[in-house]
Amino acid sequence: MSTLVTGIAELVTNNPRLGAGPLGLVPDAAVVVADGAVTWVGPASAAPAADRRLDVGGRAVLPGFVDSHAHLVFGGDRAVEFEARMSGQAYDGGGIASTVGATRSATDEELRARLGALVAEMRAQGTTTVEVKSGYGLSVDDEARALRLAQEVTVETTFLGAHVVPPEYAGRTDDYVELVCGPMLAACAPHARWVDVFCEPASAHAFDDEQSRAVLAAGRAAGLGLRVHGNQLAEGPGVRLAVELGAASVDHCTHLVDADVDALAGGSTVATLLPGVEFSTRSPYPDARRLLDAGVTVALATDCNPGSCFTSSMPFCVALAVREMAMTPAEAVWSATGGGAAALRRTDVGWLGVGARADLAVLEAPSYRHLAYRPGVPLARTLDLSLAT
Amino acid sequence: MSTLVTGIAELVTNNPRLGAGPLGLVPDAAVVVADGAVTWVGPASAAPAADRRLDVGGRAVLPGFVDSHAHLVFGGDRAVEFEARMSGQAYDGGGIASTVGATRSATDEELRARLGALVAEMRAQGTTTVEVKSGYGLSVDDEARALRLAQEVTVETTFLGAHVVPPEYAGRTDDYVELVCGPMLAACAPHARWVDVFCEPASAHAFDDEQSRAVLAAGRAAGLGLRVHGNQLAEGPGVRLAVELGAASVDHCTHLVDADVDALAGGSTVATLLPGVEFSTRSPYPDARRLLDAGVTVALATDCNPGSCFTSSMPFCVALAVREMAMTPAEAVWSATGGGAAALRRTDVGWLGVGARADLAVLEAPSYRHLAYRPGVPLARTLDLSLAT
Repeated sequence: MSTLVTGIAELVTNNPRLGAGPLGLVPDAAVVVADGAVTWVGPASAAPAADRRLDVGGRAVLPGFVDSHAHLVFGGDRAVEFEARMSGQAYDGGGIASTVGATRSATDEELRARLGALVAEMRAQGTTTVEVKSGYGLSVDDEARALRLAQEVTVETTFLGAHVVPPEYAGRTDDYVELVCGPMLAACAPHARWVDVFCEPASAHAFDDEQSRAVLAAGRAAGLGLRVHGNQLAEGPGVRLAVELGAASVDHCTHLVDADVDALAGGSTVATLLPGVEFSTRSPYPDARRLLDAGVTVALATDCNPGSCFTSSMPFCVALAVREMAMTPAEAVWSATGGGAAALRRTDVGWLGVGARADLAVLEAPSYRHLAYRPGVPLARTLDLSLAT
Repeated sequence: MSTLVTGIAELVTNNPRLGAGPLGLVPDAAVVVADGAVTWVGPASAAPAADRRLDVGGRAVLPGFVDSHAHLVFGGDRAVEFEARMSGQAYDGGGIASTVGATRSATDEELRARLGALVAEMRAQGTTTVEVKSGYGLSVDDEARALRLAQEVTVETTFLGAHVVPPEYAGRTDDYVELVCGPMLAACAPHARWVDVFCEPASAHAFDDEQSRAVLAAGRAAGLGLRVHGNQLAEGPGVRLAVELGAASVDHCTHLVDADVDALAGGSTVATLLPGVEFSTRSPYPDARRLLDAGVTVALATDCNPGSCFTSSMPFCVALAVREMAMTPAEAVWSATGGGAAALRRTDVGWLGVGARADLAVLEAPSYRHLAYRPGVPLARTLDLSLAT
């Protein structure tokens, strides 16, 4: 059963061979999909016949957003902590430890309901691929549970036992790393595609160079791909470690020295920027322009989590990237689609052309530019191909 | 026919006599409405019977947003100009003159379709009262047409013939002011509640102290209430003029001296801040904290327009106010509801209690805090009371 999508005022293919500029723009375009894959893209005037038809009425269509960094398995929320932080009050409500406690005490059904609601919320905003990390269980059983639940909604599951040192291991980080690399990894690896570590030596709750290296080496030995949280709070070894080990992505990249930029430019690791975090913590933004000008591949993701950034909106991240990180609208849209796919080493999403997955987002607007031009407006949604007639 | 709204996890009344804190919060609340007005609010456990019932399922309910500053009657868009500006390119595509040209050449049906779509978009995001200005016609017939169309969607219509000096009056501002105060006002006053002027002596395209005073005096003589665009681009006389003349609101207030703050604190004029403009023009934000600490009444509005800020999202403005202007989440929510009502001198909207209009917004969240805690996420919608059963 094939479907012809028509009425596309502007199609973003992310393939410069298919259209104009780096986004491969095709005006007045059509797309044909069949069996979940794209089988044709091009000018509407040349479109082939298909079994069914869906007219999007003069709107822009782009590849669904690829959100390569999200923490969606958790209990509770931290709205009161957020309010206190943004109001200049000292109260922190227990910080991440409160989420760990609420996650451990939540039932599977409660976690599944929250996770499902957030994934649906993302999908309603045009996100068609999402990575989901563990990292609020921090025990063998709770981490494995988080990943089993995550597997129900995505293939992009990431074991992040090394998110923070849990309260019961306070002051015993090396012992906790041993747990993470041993029984926790053994229980989690069957449910994960990736391993990740919060490499931030400046924080007493995170992991230094050597500890991070141990976690990544163990994860790799268990067959997992590598991801790193690096250089969020301060300069440090995270970015260079990620590049050295060939991680798919190093995420945050807020505090960089020249050697970090050089390493990224010379390696295969994507720099994933999460500007929603800086928005929600009132922190300085990463320097996307410096990375882009050095030739680094940049992705944008939400980091959706209850503590430092509870947005699920890739359009919001695009608007922030343009306002705050000097990315052009085209660069930001590419980073939120093609960039996210690169950060997940996926070749089937993040673009639209023959062989790509039929993951289409449609805008309540005639051009990709409106994602930054109309900030905060819910313009994007995932195209529901079942509406074809 | 009365309707009982139940399942309200948190009700924002904006009336400290009805609940806790400045927002008058009532947990586990209910609201009864009849004939378009609120007839009862209080704890769900004490709710009276009603003819019909609508359960909002554990969500927060607040007064619908009051967007007291918007420019929604125009032709064309300026997405390409926006992209160029944010990418550091010199191209301006003609700026506001291009919108004036496109507005003049648009048919009534084209203008009505755009206006209706934007009002619907606002309503879908929880805005229940919107002010709409003319200001892209800048001829007698085109300004009157804009206001006739605006009257079809709102009672809050504002004559802004003194938006900018149109190209055909370039260098002859006084002649244009004579037109605005004479035949243009005569044609527009029957369709307007307010008169407004862009008082910005630093701009060759706007109006100085004396010209602004003439426009406001003529508008007042024609029975219109007063509003002022003031101190957006530079320090100037706008704010003090607005207070001196008892304007309902002075909008932008980005560049203030102490005398401006003192005037606002001693007068009855609301300071309306439009942070979406600073977001979309990459400009410094107004100092809301300084105004609030001086006791000034602050409103938040979108300034939705195709040039400097094309957001229609009051939740986005709330999130920006918290991130960028040091407003607390509670202050920002009040300013987007009660503040907007004050800026329009309305006592029937912007709060929820007996006698208020039945304009309810509901959040996909349990608390008002989430409007800032979850930036960019489409959480708010106008409650559709017709769904009651």
